[in-house]
Amino acid sequence: MRLAPAPELMARFKAIVGDKYAITDPDVLAPHLIEGRGLYHGHTAMMLKPANTAEVAAILKLANETRTAIVPQGGNTGLVGGQIPFDGEIILSLSRLDKIREIDSESNTMTLEAGVVLQKAQEAAHAAGRLFPLSLGSEGSCTIGGNLSSNAGGTGALAYGIARELMVGVEVVLADGRVMNLLRKLKKDNTGYDLRHIFVGAEGTLGIITTAVVKLFPQPRAIETAFIGLPSPDAAVKLLNLAQSRIGGTVTGFELMIRGILEFALKHGHNVRDPLAGPHPWYVLMEVSSQQAEGLRDNVEEFLAEAIEQGIVGDATLAANMDQAKAFWHMRHTLTEVQKPEGGSIKHDISVPVAAVPQFIAEASEAVVKLIPGSRPVPFGHVGDGNMHFNVSQPVGADKAEFLARWKDVNAVVDKIVLKLNGSFSAEHGIGKLKRDTLAKVKDPVALALMRDLKKSFDPNGILNPGKVL
Amino acid sequence: MRLAPAPELMARFKAIVGDKYAITDPDVLAPHLIEGRGLYHGHTAMMLKPANTAEVAAILKLANETRTAIVPQGGNTGLVGGQIPFDGEIILSLSRLDKIREIDSESNTMTLEAGVVLQKAQEAAHAAGRLFPLSLGSEGSCTIGGNLSSNAGGTGALAYGIARELMVGVEVVLADGRVMNLLRKLKKDNTGYDLRHIFVGAEGTLGIITTAVVKLFPQPRAIETAFIGLPSPDAAVKLLNLAQSRIGGTVTGFELMIRGILEFALKHGHNVRDPLAGPHPWYVLMEVSSQQAEGLRDNVEEFLAEAIEQGIVGDATLAANMDQAKAFWHMRHTLTEVQKPEGGSIKHDISVPVAAVPQFIAEASEAVVKLIPGSRPVPFGHVGDGNMHFNVSQPVGADKAEFLARWKDVNAVVDKIVLKLNGSFSAEHGIGKLKRDTLAKVKDPVALALMRDLKKSFDPNGILNPGKVL
Repeated sequence: MRLAPAPELMARFKAIVGDKYAITDPDVLAPHLIEGRGLYHGHTAMMLKPANTAEVAAILKLANETRTAIVPQGGNTGLVGGQIPFDGEIILSLSRLDKIREIDSESNTMTLEAGVVLQKAQEAAHAAGRLFPLSLGSEGSCTIGGNLSSNAGGTGALAYGIARELMVGVEVVLADGRVMNLLRKLKKDNTGYDLRHIFVGAEGTLGIITTAVVKLFPQPRAIETAFIGLPSPDAAVKLLNLAQSRIGGTVTGFELMIRGILEFALKHGHNVRDPLAGPHPWYVLMEVSSQQAEGLRDNVEEFLAEAIEQGIVGDATLAANMDQAKAFWHMRHTLTEVQKPEGGSIKHDISVPVAAVPQFIAEASEAVVKLIPGSRPVPFGHVGDGNMHFNVSQPVGADKAEFLARWKDVNAVVDKIVLKLNGSFSAEHGIGKLKRDTLAKVKDPVALALMRDLKKSFDPNGILNPGKVL
Repeated sequence: MRLAPAPELMARFKAIVGDKYAITDPDVLAPHLIEGRGLYHGHTAMMLKPANTAEVAAILKLANETRTAIVPQGGNTGLVGGQIPFDGEIILSLSRLDKIREIDSESNTMTLEAGVVLQKAQEAAHAAGRLFPLSLGSEGSCTIGGNLSSNAGGTGALAYGIARELMVGVEVVLADGRVMNLLRKLKKDNTGYDLRHIFVGAEGTLGIITTAVVKLFPQPRAIETAFIGLPSPDAAVKLLNLAQSRIGGTVTGFELMIRGILEFALKHGHNVRDPLAGPHPWYVLMEVSSQQAEGLRDNVEEFLAEAIEQGIVGDATLAANMDQAKAFWHMRHTLTEVQKPEGGSIKHDISVPVAAVPQFIAEASEAVVKLIPGSRPVPFGHVGDGNMHFNVSQPVGADKAEFLARWKDVNAVVDKIVLKLNGSFSAEHGIGKLKRDTLAKVKDPVALALMRDLKKSFDPNGILNPGKVL
């Protein structure tokens, strides 16, 4: 089933989308076969670019009848290999389903197709005087369909929710080509089982999301951005709870980072400066938003002064203007990049209960350094979601390949602590191919059995993104 | 299968929970066989009251092996007959699973068992300095398990979300007695398909929720409650969007009601007074909460003054103190009760996109009065969720029974308008037995087929709440 289809079958698929949109030129296919970091390499004979839901349905119907495997692809920005055709599967690109169908400002919803690039969705909402708060590093390329299929998180999740929570309605093409229309603009709809959430986060293995209705929010009328030095992750968790309880606005960003990674940014980043006078062991980038135009700055300033007095905060500075706020966020967004000049980096995308973040960081750092003396843990991430990107840079001067060869050993040590703390070894990146074996080992066995039942029931011929997740 | 079990089998069920907790006394059973309004009457030979998840699992295992049907019951407050054993099924009462296991103030989660009464959960959160915002008329009796199984809504949904959105983790006993443990305190966990949402809102037909982790929030430090007179539902929708965009706090309540139902409350309600000097065609009860102790009142006052100037609001008053705020809410909560002295009332629990609420009210009112001249539509409800309780009181002096005999005709007229507006004929009450036939008629046929597949896959012997939902 997973082999490339025969020429005659390829012709039948081509006929659905038209020759122009059945890509077989290896040069055009090439960028769709690898992902950004070059970790995964796939191969395929063809990529189909349907124009609409009906064409997606026709493709799946034919694929199901002929047992032809399909890998859906949005912006090809996934980090776990979910979008790569490892076994010659046909790529189903959603890129031509790129219409924003409606923005309903009174109902606070946007109806848009799967191939809409996230940044375009944000811009369209903005132009309508609304906020679409999903925000990721890859927002210039990733698409709404991919965001929903992978249940994306990002920096806005703290206040506005992850992709799943921003989804109101979906249209899904099932494995056999049937189209399920759950495109409603309703907050409350208790008419039977919630089928929407089965497809969100399923990484295209149960059905193909073709259209969605998502939530919009009012644009904040005031935003304050603070860069804060603290003694410890424990202080950061305390600060978060205090801020959420006492500031007369919404805490819309709360990113923790260790001094070590700020140093990487200062050394290797473009246009990065330390916003504070002296060094601190840890930092928080905090953003607070309000619908009230006046008074937020005073409120945040008072709050921070109080936190300094209480010893929770060492030092803090408020961005003087939008440019400075952007500079703070620029530094945050550069953190993945600035690890590269420091050599090999072994990465984790984990979550634990918020209260357990300090314990996780302490124990994981100690365990990793014990395993590989001289290795440098540089944890950072969305502490308000309990979601840390616990990355480990190689020892200074060590051999990069030798260090990276320990990837699985380091993962094992970290995941063990995550599981002990009732955490997740994949907080926002998903399972794809990368974490499939780990899932099979650590997931609740009853849940795993139910997942397999679902896959069998929804995709009995196994044509949808085979070998991913399960 | 649906007949009462034979004595020998009953003894085996009894042995699981002990004689004391296998109720067979008709007098003790009686209140569990009818619901509050007396609309549904069931019968059973036995109600089992297990002490914990293990006993629930043992009951389901035996039920599945012996094809014995089970109806789960929490506080018996459901409005669609979902909790009633119509065909002699054994009642599985979750009332002894009543422990609040943990409140984690730093992670903002509460772990509690299915039988905990909602009000107790609210009180426990409050005692820990946190808010559990789910709030319903029946909160003194309904239970967390029932709230999740029916995906309860209520007045807090606008700002904090419906039950589904307040759920973080669940433990579920499957039809065959296997226990699935998804009790995590994680906001982000992308490790495979989201199985939690399959069980939330499934009304006990796919599995039994035994324990849950729910979200907590900071307690607001300032609350302002306004009673507002307006010219139209259209003005109410405009006011809501303005309030959400411009007030420096969170709009935590926004209840619309027509003058007619306020008149019922003034006439029949206990301790109800009109908060405004003159009459207005429509009213909104608005609550705004803030984490900032100071300044909210000025902010809301200015906002309302502006809205009056713009002609969106006719008149408004802010509660002078907590007692007055309570009086406003008391009036809102009395609205179901005060319809009774006016004779028969035909009820609808519908939702439409927020922007379509005015059109829905206008068209449905016209259609109903055309169908039954003199009938009195008294719409009220959670306009911010697009969720209206579109109730219709009988014509003055008409025969009650004759009027109520038109229930299905009136439903049909209203549901037709709801569907035209892409709304839901059951916004928060669910399907149960009452709306099962409507569901089969109007649900997307592909979704309905998937629902049937799920039921078959999760409960192949059909022992879980048979005849409900599907």
